[in-house]
Amino acid sequence: MSLLIIGTMAFDALETPFGKVDRIIGGSATYAAWAASNFTQPIKQVSIIGGDFPQEEIAALEARGVAFEGVEVVPDGKSFFWSGRYHMDMNTRDTLVTDLNVLAQFDPKIPESYQGCDYVMLGNLAPAVQISVLEQLKKRPKLIIMDTMNFWMDIAMDDLRKAIGMVDLLMVNDSEARQLSGEYSIVKAAKKIQAMGPKYLIIKKGEHGALLFYEGKIFSAPALPLEEVFDPTGAGDTFAGGFIGYLARINDTSFESMKAAVIMGSAMASYCVEKFGPTRMKELTPADVDSRVKEFISLMDFNIQN
Amino acid sequence: MSLLIIGTMAFDALETPFGKVDRIIGGSATYAAWAASNFTQPIKQVSIIGGDFPQEEIAALEARGVAFEGVEVVPDGKSFFWSGRYHMDMNTRDTLVTDLNVLAQFDPKIPESYQGCDYVMLGNLAPAVQISVLEQLKKRPKLIIMDTMNFWMDIAMDDLRKAIGMVDLLMVNDSEARQLSGEYSIVKAAKKIQAMGPKYLIIKKGEHGALLFYEGKIFSAPALPLEEVFDPTGAGDTFAGGFIGYLARINDTSFESMKAAVIMGSAMASYCVEKFGPTRMKELTPADVDSRVKEFISLMDFNIQN
Repeated sequence: MSLLIIGTMAFDALETPFGKVDRIIGGSATYAAWAASNFTQPIKQVSIIGGDFPQEEIAALEARGVAFEGVEVVPDGKSFFWSGRYHMDMNTRDTLVTDLNVLAQFDPKIPESYQGCDYVMLGNLAPAVQISVLEQLKKRPKLIIMDTMNFWMDIAMDDLRKAIGMVDLLMVNDSEARQLSGEYSIVKAAKKIQAMGPKYLIIKKGEHGALLFYEGKIFSAPALPLEEVFDPTGAGDTFAGGFIGYLARINDTSFESMKAAVIMGSAMASYCVEKFGPTRMKELTPADVDSRVKEFISLMDFNIQN
Repeated sequence: MSLLIIGTMAFDALETPFGKVDRIIGGSATYAAWAASNFTQPIKQVSIIGGDFPQEEIAALEARGVAFEGVEVVPDGKSFFWSGRYHMDMNTRDTLVTDLNVLAQFDPKIPESYQGCDYVMLGNLAPAVQISVLEQLKKRPKLIIMDTMNFWMDIAMDDLRKAIGMVDLLMVNDSEARQLSGEYSIVKAAKKIQAMGPKYLIIKKGEHGALLFYEGKIFSAPALPLEEVFDPTGAGDTFAGGFIGYLARINDTSFESMKAAVIMGSAMASYCVEKFGPTRMKELTPADVDSRVKEFISLMDFNIQN
């Protein structure tokens, strides 16, 4: 089924305990599109880039079925740039530089050819921009998922609340869930966030996996234990892209399907962190996806005898 | 099958964000015995207590099939006492008081009636004491599991290495695994620890569950997401008791059975933390155990469709 992804397409400079890169392709919509394209095509991409965004990166995504009609190009502008440094535990990072560049003027217009999409992913962006996209859609999608971050809780809580009230599923990490709800207990936090609107909630816990909440039910997915997490940048966006890409492929939004989608997202994210930026995502074959999903099945499989 | 548990039987004073208790029954062997007795009886307990250890606590354990022949009573001595305070995240705690009391003179003698045990749990104790117990066993047990803590890594690393080399399974938390191995990555840490002797390794991650390592394979069990972790004291010992109690019941030490045993241990631990001390463990019925195990199955269950 048709999938619309809105988010950033950017340059990142990254420093991890394993090395550094000065300028690599990044952005939430970039990672999400790479991951989702393993499951469904075409993908209707909505973003904004400067004239500096490499033509070969666009061509590579187009070859994976990513449509660029909704990606605004500002020829004399510069693409969004983010720079960060990770610590040994890879769960905490310091932002060194945030240059909004063309993102400061991002006012997305949904092309007519993008109307009628059934699956929509709102990558982490100003909540007002996320709302604007939803308000332009003529038909209510079957599933809207949304990512956000603590930054918007600090400076745009009213807009954020409104956006959260418009979506089916919110995806945040554990510290963001605590900040958003004011509850320390993850279970209590989930209840409060679900009461804000989203029927479904995913709380991401990095190397400890992810929890999916729906009504009174919980599904817990592990992260794949890895010898080395080389670069966690984009892991959350990759998770989201794999998650919604899989749901769009099977065209089902039941809790049962969402549980499988969490595994698909986790499998994608486990590949993402193996190399800098989206490098590893570009190499993936269908056989890679299958074998990683089998690893998750084996990681979680047990039988009780009495 | 016959199960031997060695560890402390003690008094604890506890402070958590939910309240405090000045003097409650505790100790690794106490928690382990309560948990294991849900699966197998009798349990051959080895410990040391003072004359102050309550007769009704002994009677309650005896009623659960716990043998006391190997528990030394020092009539004019005081039982081991530990006092600690937990922080909001419940994963970190400060030790306020450690009074060894009779534990300082603990030199366990294994009674003749305890010989021939197939399943042995070495609770957290001085490694020299753990070694002494193993050296007294005339027949090599089918399974020896061992718990320890960072304290022994700091002051008795040679003995600890020797003890670890004598057991089939070591159980530590993630920070202890890092300290013991000198590796930050949990997967690398596991390899190094397995190279020290134990074929099996369990790394406990508190609210994030536990990982079981065997040869190149990994099993990941979640913790049950709870609204409130009231008191985490004894959760690790309860996990260990449920784990080995289940294996003793089914009398199997394959990797497949150990995976199920991790779930049993996790189910027991999820009950333990609901109330102060072992209070909740004393109330458990077989129906409680069954229903909590079903919650774990549901928490981890998913199916992929293509």
